[in-house]
Amino acid sequence: MTRERLVALTDRGLVDRTGLISHGRGEAFDYLLGERTTAAAAAAAKAAAAHLLRARNPVICTNGNATALDPENLIKLATMVPAKLEVNLFHYSRERMEGLIGYLEQHGAEDVRGRDPDARIPGLTSDRARCTRDGIFDSDVILVPIEDGDRAEALVAMGKTVISIDLNPLSRTSRLASVSISDEMTRALENIMASVAELRGDEAAISEAISGFSNKDNRRRTVEQICRSLTAEFDQR
Amino acid sequence: MTRERLVALTDRGLVDRTGLISHGRGEAFDYLLGERTTAAAAAAAKAAAAHLLRARNPVICTNGNATALDPENLIKLATMVPAKLEVNLFHYSRERMEGLIGYLEQHGAEDVRGRDPDARIPGLTSDRARCTRDGIFDSDVILVPIEDGDRAEALVAMGKTVISIDLNPLSRTSRLASVSISDEMTRALENIMASVAELRGDEAAISEAISGFSNKDNRRRTVEQICRSLTAEFDQR
Repeated sequence: MTRERLVALTDRGLVDRTGLISHGRGEAFDYLLGERTTAAAAAAAKAAAAHLLRARNPVICTNGNATALDPENLIKLATMVPAKLEVNLFHYSRERMEGLIGYLEQHGAEDVRGRDPDARIPGLTSDRARCTRDGIFDSDVILVPIEDGDRAEALVAMGKTVISIDLNPLSRTSRLASVSISDEMTRALENIMASVAELRGDEAAISEAISGFSNKDNRRRTVEQICRSLTAEFDQR
Repeated sequence: MTRERLVALTDRGLVDRTGLISHGRGEAFDYLLGERTTAAAAAAAKAAAAHLLRARNPVICTNGNATALDPENLIKLATMVPAKLEVNLFHYSRERMEGLIGYLEQHGAEDVRGRDPDARIPGLTSDRARCTRDGIFDSDVILVPIEDGDRAEALVAMGKTVISIDLNPLSRTSRLASVSISDEMTRALENIMASVAELRGDEAAISEAISGFSNKDNRRRTVEQICRSLTAEFDQR
């Protein structure tokens, strides 16, 4: 079903065809992780929720694939935190931007940013540098589901707390992010929302979720989990 | 470049869009294998060459993705063995079949089978059962690059020696095949050709390459290699 949805949105020009290839890469890692949330991914989602709750200007940055995969939960999380929702494209065109914002609006989103970029992410050339000043540019905590490595790097260089959702724990995005969630996007968003509900109002728990989290240790646990799954899967058959 | 080629052939209707997602899954495993031929993949390629040389009626079965990725080496191997080359599609249409055969002919292939199927692979419903009687149906050794699990299973059930090229060592195709090469297709084809050149005429070496090969042990080595690569990659960074 997910594949069919992505293919259908490719036909409408909302998902780039190379986005289908990226999605396949994600599927392979999801398979290696057992297609479920690992303990490491749950811990990262909790740290992510804490950062979002503590943020001055939290932003959820979405692209073609992320929007196509799960507009509902992106909007739900943005409303819940609350955080701004901004569309930012690697393969930019006016039509694609309008199409994706329209798609989010059809799913109930309001105030989606991205139509009128008035700032640029330093260090990036090309259209993907384009962003809004009071959205991505000014954000202190930014959630980037399915991001490319260059942009993740540029956002980290701006001093932002970058939360990534990327199934590959060794990708440049996962390595550079402050909090890397290696999980399928829908599961990751639902876990962040559960932690937002749990942590909200409990400042001590929020502080502990932030300071007690080591992203490097957590990524190592993900890598170890992949090896355990692979070996167990092999031995079972 | 490979991605651009696949996307371009998707636009021409030769590669199915879900084939882009499959390609992405392969890319992820290729990355985990270090984007090079492992010792296990080299051993499997040698066993594959031995089986092809000893075959009564060897066939190379190609589909949209395989044809798009490397028509040159598919044709080269078919000529070298020699083996018959047959197009067999999961998402069949007359136009796509003609398009893919035409694409192979543009690259110098002659006698490509698949236009006029006159037999069916038992146990498969739908169009992908369609094959030629003196090609896939009658083959004793069949090379299937980038195959789907159902068809691999049906071919094994027909008693054929199935050689797969599939980057995922745990896929149904890899598990069911007689010889599973977990390597990127071009590298796998080039390694098979090198082994064909080395083994040809040396019947003792051919027998040894066949009898000394355990596919299960070899797949286990691939899984272990993925874990070593992941851990080394993590520690390096």
